[in-house]
Amino acid sequence: MASIKVEIRSGAYYDSAFLMQLQRSLATLPGVQDAGVIMGTEANKELLAHIDLLPAEAESAKPDDLIIVVRAETETGAIEALSKVDELINRRKSTSSQEHRPQSLETAVQELPEAEWVLVSVAGRYAAGVTRQALRLNKHVFLFSDNVSVDEEIELKQISSEKGLLVMGPDCGTAIIRGVGLGFANKVRLGPIGVVAAAGTGLQQVTSHIHQLGSGITYGIGTGGRDLSEKVGAVTFLQGIDVLSRDPETRVIVLVSKPPAPKVAEKVLEVARRAGKPVVVNFIGRTPAARQVDNLTFAGSLDDAAEQAVKIANQGTPVAEESKVKIDRFAPGQRYLRGLFSGGTLAYEAQFILQDYLPRVFANAPLNKENRLPNSLVSQEHTIVDLGEDEFTVGRLHPMMDNELRIRRLLEEAADPQVAVIMLDVVLGYGSHPDPAGELGPAIAKARKLAEAAGRYLEVVAVVTGTDEDPQTLDHQIEQLKAAGAWVHPSNETVVRYAGRILQALNQPKEQPEAAATTPVALATLQGTLIAINVGLESFAENLTAQGTPVIQVDWRPPAGGNERLMSILEKMKK
Amino acid sequence: MASIKVEIRSGAYYDSAFLMQLQRSLATLPGVQDAGVIMGTEANKELLAHIDLLPAEAESAKPDDLIIVVRAETETGAIEALSKVDELINRRKSTSSQEHRPQSLETAVQELPEAEWVLVSVAGRYAAGVTRQALRLNKHVFLFSDNVSVDEEIELKQISSEKGLLVMGPDCGTAIIRGVGLGFANKVRLGPIGVVAAAGTGLQQVTSHIHQLGSGITYGIGTGGRDLSEKVGAVTFLQGIDVLSRDPETRVIVLVSKPPAPKVAEKVLEVARRAGKPVVVNFIGRTPAARQVDNLTFAGSLDDAAEQAVKIANQGTPVAEESKVKIDRFAPGQRYLRGLFSGGTLAYEAQFILQDYLPRVFANAPLNKENRLPNSLVSQEHTIVDLGEDEFTVGRLHPMMDNELRIRRLLEEAADPQVAVIMLDVVLGYGSHPDPAGELGPAIAKARKLAEAAGRYLEVVAVVTGTDEDPQTLDHQIEQLKAAGAWVHPSNETVVRYAGRILQALNQPKEQPEAAATTPVALATLQGTLIAINVGLESFAENLTAQGTPVIQVDWRPPAGGNERLMSILEKMKK
Repeated sequence: MASIKVEIRSGAYYDSAFLMQLQRSLATLPGVQDAGVIMGTEANKELLAHIDLLPAEAESAKPDDLIIVVRAETETGAIEALSKVDELINRRKSTSSQEHRPQSLETAVQELPEAEWVLVSVAGRYAAGVTRQALRLNKHVFLFSDNVSVDEEIELKQISSEKGLLVMGPDCGTAIIRGVGLGFANKVRLGPIGVVAAAGTGLQQVTSHIHQLGSGITYGIGTGGRDLSEKVGAVTFLQGIDVLSRDPETRVIVLVSKPPAPKVAEKVLEVARRAGKPVVVNFIGRTPAARQVDNLTFAGSLDDAAEQAVKIANQGTPVAEESKVKIDRFAPGQRYLRGLFSGGTLAYEAQFILQDYLPRVFANAPLNKENRLPNSLVSQEHTIVDLGEDEFTVGRLHPMMDNELRIRRLLEEAADPQVAVIMLDVVLGYGSHPDPAGELGPAIAKARKLAEAAGRYLEVVAVVTGTDEDPQTLDHQIEQLKAAGAWVHPSNETVVRYAGRILQALNQPKEQPEAAATTPVALATLQGTLIAINVGLESFAENLTAQGTPVIQVDWRPPAGGNERLMSILEKMKK
Repeated sequence: MASIKVEIRSGAYYDSAFLMQLQRSLATLPGVQDAGVIMGTEANKELLAHIDLLPAEAESAKPDDLIIVVRAETETGAIEALSKVDELINRRKSTSSQEHRPQSLETAVQELPEAEWVLVSVAGRYAAGVTRQALRLNKHVFLFSDNVSVDEEIELKQISSEKGLLVMGPDCGTAIIRGVGLGFANKVRLGPIGVVAAAGTGLQQVTSHIHQLGSGITYGIGTGGRDLSEKVGAVTFLQGIDVLSRDPETRVIVLVSKPPAPKVAEKVLEVARRAGKPVVVNFIGRTPAARQVDNLTFAGSLDDAAEQAVKIANQGTPVAEESKVKIDRFAPGQRYLRGLFSGGTLAYEAQFILQDYLPRVFANAPLNKENRLPNSLVSQEHTIVDLGEDEFTVGRLHPMMDNELRIRRLLEEAADPQVAVIMLDVVLGYGSHPDPAGELGPAIAKARKLAEAAGRYLEVVAVVTGTDEDPQTLDHQIEQLKAAGAWVHPSNETVVRYAGRILQALNQPKEQPEAAATTPVALATLQGTLIAINVGLESFAENLTAQGTPVIQVDWRPPAGGNERLMSILEKMKK
């Protein structure tokens, strides 16, 4: 009959790599069936119980306590195994302290002052303290540790953004700085793509796939998976976009995130739109309205993000049409859209695409019920009316055949001093009016003059749906509309996005509320040879060495022997 | 001071083209400022009031009443204008009745029995009756009329599907049958793309753009915008997909819809997946999880749909990997997925993609809160566990460095008789375990043997994230996993979709509930030369003639002089 023996050690600090090794050493002793060496958190105790390794004496262990438990074939075997713990601990200590190591981050910085980076992977409850110290010393921090509270994250990122430093993390698995991987990182060649990721394995999957496709990356900036939460507000993510937009070697930016807070995602995309470079976006769980919006390309998966980025980088596709639009010709107060459609599907698609630009668009055939126009005859704010709806066609020809109703409405909308843009669809083909632009063109010209006489500028935009073989002559229809002063395109999406950009600009608050004043991250600190100081998992330092990166390992111990009250006093003295 | 005069005519039937012409004629009489000729529906009366053309006498007009109203400079002018109404009506009658025309649909069919199509564009309240008659005569119907109730639509489509006939509509703006446009339709060249559209201008925009891109279409099957509502249940849409999947000349299918009911959209996509051809989908307002799912490509806009379809047609891309998977090797009862991840982002992406295949997946880090796994140590139904979550890493190495916890869990899941598929991620690179497959491989082999010994088949699938330059040697890692019997791929998406297809198949009810037994539409009736009978707007017949299509115009009048009670009796006698 098997026997389980346990030992609880209080106040002892060992890193998790060491705990794993101790557990493995114990488990392979003769006669031992299983072993656990783990801190006494509730989750860990549940886990031990689940695998039948939690004797009654261990149930009261506290999170700071180290539980050492073995199950052996005999009671003697279990007791013997536990008796070897100290020997195993000491054996390990003696092997690891052969070379000289600084005992503190300060000392390490004195020894290697040119290091711009500190890697932190100590246990979660000490990680914020070490990070604070690194920021005080003006270093960028790669913060691998998890179990750091969101309040600590907010505080650390406030400090870092004020100082123009990056805090990548907490719980940041991966970063790649000019070919050097920090934490978990694949060996990826240098190339024209920069990645910002609130997603550790997301960054790994995307950069690996970019490499597999023959391309490479400049920087892979990890932010920690919580960076796009409402509380944190994408501080590091926005720093990352800013850095990559300024980096001349980054030609395409990829943004990846675990499911972000919708509002924060919007804010990030708004900034990304002004990056001045193509940006490929994969925010998991968040499906965008369109594949392509200005310079943004939305990818359906991590692999797709890599593929799109490589394609754009290879093609050297320039940024799509300047997203700034001329709005100074509009009079004050002009801000609304009126869409007067004959095609129901085009009207729906317009509403759908406008979600990217405007908070709310009313319609007589709305995408969402709450946006139903109370009275189809009276527009309000941004409005799209489908004049082909049943309500308009009892005993009346469809508006593709009879322009009368639409022309009346067009002139009515043009008289509204708040209207800035009027959109029309002109659908050609058999069955439709034989010369719609011949009637709509003069009405457009009249509407624009009417607005002009009142001191306003009226933008009339029109999609023309048709082919070069249609009976109305496509080119002639387009010419007549253009001659009337309309902005014309055969793609509904293109016209709607053009209108959307104008309306978005007209409806933006004059003074853009700036985020808390931050110092930009100095590109130069990222461009040089990476030199680092490592506090925590030794394997991370070994990996840097393997990549040819100078690194100092700090022989770190919790301050004040891990006593939290003392730690807090020490911390205050340093401020 | 202007004067308004009105005349109400009860029980008179004129088609809407005629009403428009009468209105225009009145409006251009000398001294007349404005005129309205319109049926007395509430919406129409509101509109007249809105443009100041509704005198008190007209306010009580009923929907069947024709309102004729003029506003003239003087009272005499208004009275004179109204006095010319009969003359204008008679002038029009005499011009339009010069040639012989059959007075009924039956007569027309006798004269042109080879016509397979009837176009219906009479006023909404008569349209269902004419359609019923056409179906009785075994004709496909293009039903342009709107203002047809949804109950009538359901009834008509039940009749048509039982007879293997198409009812395109009601409110179907457009169809193109082998190059011939019905209703509103652009001149589009013949080509390899077939379109089914619950979206009139959607069909026009997509087919026009296909033409502009140099390609063309076989059929453009309109269904009416309500076909994908819950009540109608996509009867015509599914007939359309079925026809196009059987048509050898259609190489790519495009599906377009105004915002569909989500459940109906799911059903349609399920059928589309079995079409045996590439299918491009643009359902407005409904953003899919992924760009590509098996043979389905999701487009972001109408233009994008056209572009994707042309690209696929040009490339001749074959249908993606056979979507049927082998499931007969699983034992009865095996049906669940257990995903054991070390990468949080990969775990999120897996959940996101699995939405395409499974109704619910539990997780310790769920995409939606309601899918939170109550106990992270105990899987239930389909479950994805991220072993890198904070709860698992207090004083324990990350699962990318230490495989122990995952191997324990793997063996536990393998022992569950309901488990069919286990998914793992193996993330290589600096920082990760130096030989993860060296430890996971044997565990996978052991897990599979354990299941085999219990008479089950266990599918273990693994994504390997890494590059050929990673320290672990990518190929060697993949080989070891494959040698252990795992299905391995470097794309997370590919692995998840492979697993998703298996699990979807295992969880499908044995007997697939069939839709109401329908007769397939005979392809031959669509393939021949289009010959048609037109009931309603004369311009539709003229357009067919212009396209070289034989057509007979029926000189249609409402039965029983438009008396609804009599109409209903006549209708019953015919059944």
